Amino acid sequence: MRLYNVAVVGATGLVGRKMIQVLEERKFPVGNIKFLASERSVGKEVQFGGTIHPVGKLTERSFTGIEVALFSAGATVSKEFARHAVQVGSLVVDNSSAFRMDATVPLVVPEVNRKMIFHHKGIVANPNCSTIQMVVALKPLHDRWRIKRIIVATYQSVTGGGQRGLNQLEQELAKEPVVEKKFAHQIAMNVLPQVDIFLPDGYTKEEHKMEHETKKT
Amino acid sequence: MRLYNVAVVGATGLVGRKMIQVLEERKFPVGNIKFLASERSVGKEVQFGGTIHPVGKLTERSFTGIEVALFSAGATVSKEFARHAVQVGSLVVDNSSAFRMDATVPLVVPEVNRKMIFHHKGIVANPNCSTIQMVVALKPLHDRWRIKRIIVATYQSVTGGGQRGLNQLEQELAKEPVVEKKFAHQIAMNVLPQVDIFLPDGYTKEEHKMEHETKKT
Repeated sequence: MRLYNVAVVGATGLVGRKMIQVLEERKFPVGNIKFLASERSVGKEVQFGGTIHPVGKLTERSFTGIEVALFSAGATVSKEFARHAVQVGSLVVDNSSAFRMDATVPLVVPEVNRKMIFHHKGIVANPNCSTIQMVVALKPLHDRWRIKRIIVATYQSVTGGGQRGLNQLEQELAKEPVVEKKFAHQIAMNVLPQVDIFLPDGYTKEEHKMEHETKKT
Repeated sequence: MRLYNVAVVGATGLVGRKMIQVLEERKFPVGNIKFLASERSVGKEVQFGGTIHPVGKLTERSFTGIEVALFSAGATVSKEFARHAVQVGSLVVDNSSAFRMDATVPLVVPEVNRKMIFHHKGIVANPNCSTIQMVVALKPLHDRWRIKRIIVATYQSVTGGGQRGLNQLEQELAKEPVVEKKFAHQIAMNVLPQVDIFLPDGYTKEEHKMEHETKKT
């Protein structure tokens, strides 16, 4: 079986760790694997395939020999480092918002537009989580009747705020001081009627994502 | 100042205790006060006005001398006992769904239709909690533009399930066995996409309440 050399960028984050778990569960044919993160996480370890792997520092030269680079370390990191991966021939699968609206980057949800994945120029992106779930449900309706208008209410989990969001929840539930506030307000036993920041037009960034990414997908 | 003799039916429930708290906070001019509940709660005590009051068993004769009877013990209790209160001249304020759609019972939200309160025949009802909040927001819009259609998504608290709902949440969070399941599924760290039971037409009882009570209010 053909094996692939894989890098996971953001390997210590909530999504990065889930990616690693899925690579294992699905028995993805991994050759060499590299776990990359910011300087802050260097020294941490990741368990994969029965062995302990060190977390390496992400640099411009991290991608030599890497065939598939999974990015989930935020848009800033993707914007800075994805091109270095592409330059050495890696296929970047980017979970951040960095390239989603880039016309040269396919925005792919396998259940909706899987064939788009072949039209990449080194980077493939996926929509944000709310959009993915929504378009999977809407696709067959759209194919059959052509949707003209959607009214959406989301019920989003604290994990959408990543490890820091989860930490805040757990610290609040344990009545411990919150070390680093991800949410401006208490999140334990609460629901916040806002996801991401408000933009000048009065919509939130999340609302914009759902609108624009859905149309592109 | 004129004082009123008050009874609270369902005095040990989550809403009943909140009613008692509000009577105190607002300095409602209470003369005598009676705390009533089902047999199961007799023996419990309620603190009010600096003294401890026993919880009495609700019977057909509980309302003699009572001028205002606040009911919050569920529709079955209201249907059985409200008329006994009315018979002896009490004004019943009913928080349950028992009489909301009764044409002879005003369904009142003070910010929306306060004047309706004077047209009672012994019983005044309030809508369910979701409807109340919604109509307060909609009233000025409706007055100005006449609302034709509303699309509603609610984000409801566990306390909507009363003391048993809250107990389930706290037991699940503490990883204790759940003594009495109010929600069919885990509620801690979760959100359930269903409020109240489904009716034969595919809508839930909560959805029906919001539709019909809003039109009546």
